[in-house]
Amino acid sequence: MTSSTFGSRLAAEFAAGRHLCAGIDPHAQLLADWGLADDADGAERMGREVVAAAAGVAACVKPQIAFFERFGSAGYVALERVLAEARSAGVLVVADVKRGDIGTSFAAYADAWLAPGSPLESDAMTVAAYQGFGTLAGALDRVQNDGKGLFVLAATSNPEARDIQRAKTPDGRTVAATIVDDAVAWNASVAWGEAVGSVGVVLGATLDLQDFGIDTGSQPDGPSLPVLAPGFGHQGGRVEDARELFGGIGHALLANESRSILGGGPQGLAARIGDRAAAIAAALDDRRA
Amino acid sequence: MTSSTFGSRLAAEFAAGRHLCAGIDPHAQLLADWGLADDADGAERMGREVVAAAAGVAACVKPQIAFFERFGSAGYVALERVLAEARSAGVLVVADVKRGDIGTSFAAYADAWLAPGSPLESDAMTVAAYQGFGTLAGALDRVQNDGKGLFVLAATSNPEARDIQRAKTPDGRTVAATIVDDAVAWNASVAWGEAVGSVGVVLGATLDLQDFGIDTGSQPDGPSLPVLAPGFGHQGGRVEDARELFGGIGHALLANESRSILGGGPQGLAARIGDRAAAIAAALDDRRA
Repeated sequence: MTSSTFGSRLAAEFAAGRHLCAGIDPHAQLLADWGLADDADGAERMGREVVAAAAGVAACVKPQIAFFERFGSAGYVALERVLAEARSAGVLVVADVKRGDIGTSFAAYADAWLAPGSPLESDAMTVAAYQGFGTLAGALDRVQNDGKGLFVLAATSNPEARDIQRAKTPDGRTVAATIVDDAVAWNASVAWGEAVGSVGVVLGATLDLQDFGIDTGSQPDGPSLPVLAPGFGHQGGRVEDARELFGGIGHALLANESRSILGGGPQGLAARIGDRAAAIAAALDDRRA
Repeated sequence: MTSSTFGSRLAAEFAAGRHLCAGIDPHAQLLADWGLADDADGAERMGREVVAAAAGVAACVKPQIAFFERFGSAGYVALERVLAEARSAGVLVVADVKRGDIGTSFAAYADAWLAPGSPLESDAMTVAAYQGFGTLAGALDRVQNDGKGLFVLAATSNPEARDIQRAKTPDGRTVAATIVDDAVAWNASVAWGEAVGSVGVVLGATLDLQDFGIDTGSQPDGPSLPVLAPGFGHQGGRVEDARELFGGIGHALLANESRSILGGGPQGLAARIGDRAAAIAAALDDRRA
């Protein structure tokens, strides 16, 4: 049992005006731009630089685990070092793993990424619930007992996602809307008195959410819903439009940017992170007005 | 470019009467049953024993990666050794990773698990397409150019999966059926003349597939569709029912069993794998009659 929930740690970031989620994407092309080798050592160096530049400026960092996993165990050694660095710098880490499975297999993924003391321990992980929200039980235990967080894929910004995520379940809701509703309901049932819940969703910043059957007209009952939103910056989403995009469900927003801060190499990284963090803070301050 | 497709390697297994997919699930309880430590070394030992017992008897082995990932980089070192052992023993490996993402991130997962020479190189991987079948492009390149295989989650045997997988897309098909159709269409377009395709689906062996909107009444146009079916054995599916369960789409069946062969410890492992392989072969021989 930890003394603070993930939602309360997020709320503290928001109170300090921090809403940027800084991506750590050691993609081959970006490593080349940085003058780094396309190997585990290069990935570790990029990760450490982003952590150092994000500390106290961004709300969190989000390593894309695929870019570490492609180097096998050596990539995971590098990742463990980046995660340890983030913990010691006090930067929240959302492990972008999009894991999904059932029963004890999914619980093992939750152990990997959320168990206190695990070599890959992070503050939160992204998950996919193609096999149903109920399969997330093993991670929800970690949320409730260990102060961890989850972001469940709901409506994503890639065009191929539309048919599945807008498909209608037997009660007439879309698949994406059931995920949002299940996350809201979990936060309300477990953490009613908290300002911000510990279970959030991933919603693309380039979407018309009404088109996905998601109600943005009102705030959820209970805690605010954490929303991790990729699609700002490089993909074309504008933080200035966040109010309109997310409406009542966007009050606990983490705006992710990766390519826009990583492109251009290590020179100027801290300045780019600072600029994007300030732009997002200004846009969301305006939203509250 | 490799000289053989994954589908042709599967076809050779089936021609030899091998349809069993032997799970490698180093779950804490199973490791304890085996008298092994609940650590990376224990997981490696279980994996090596299953590979040795499965060689020439089962069609493939299927390590559940979550049970290795919970040990971080040390677990991946153990896994790399098990995968190397399987390659040297000539046993096909389906990495049960259920990865899913978009664009270059998903391509990085395909690099991790399917790129020739990767430390985690496997013959095939399981994937989840919550973000759409089209997001699998990075792995489909590996299928086409490197002789690799995919199994896409379609209809799974856990009860929480029903609402999402049976949800209706705009053209009236279920989500599960669109996945099956997309896999069939890919095989037909890329590998028309082959007996067995290289892109398969995961279908639970405890389901009424018609209830998921999946047509089992006829064979697909083009190559047979590889079907990886968990749910036999421990979960209650009976291989004797495979004909009725999968009908026309079940001609390229990999029947997965994990707990039924791993339970009971290392003593008798080879005998249990041999017994289950024979039972499945007999049931499917009967089906062809």
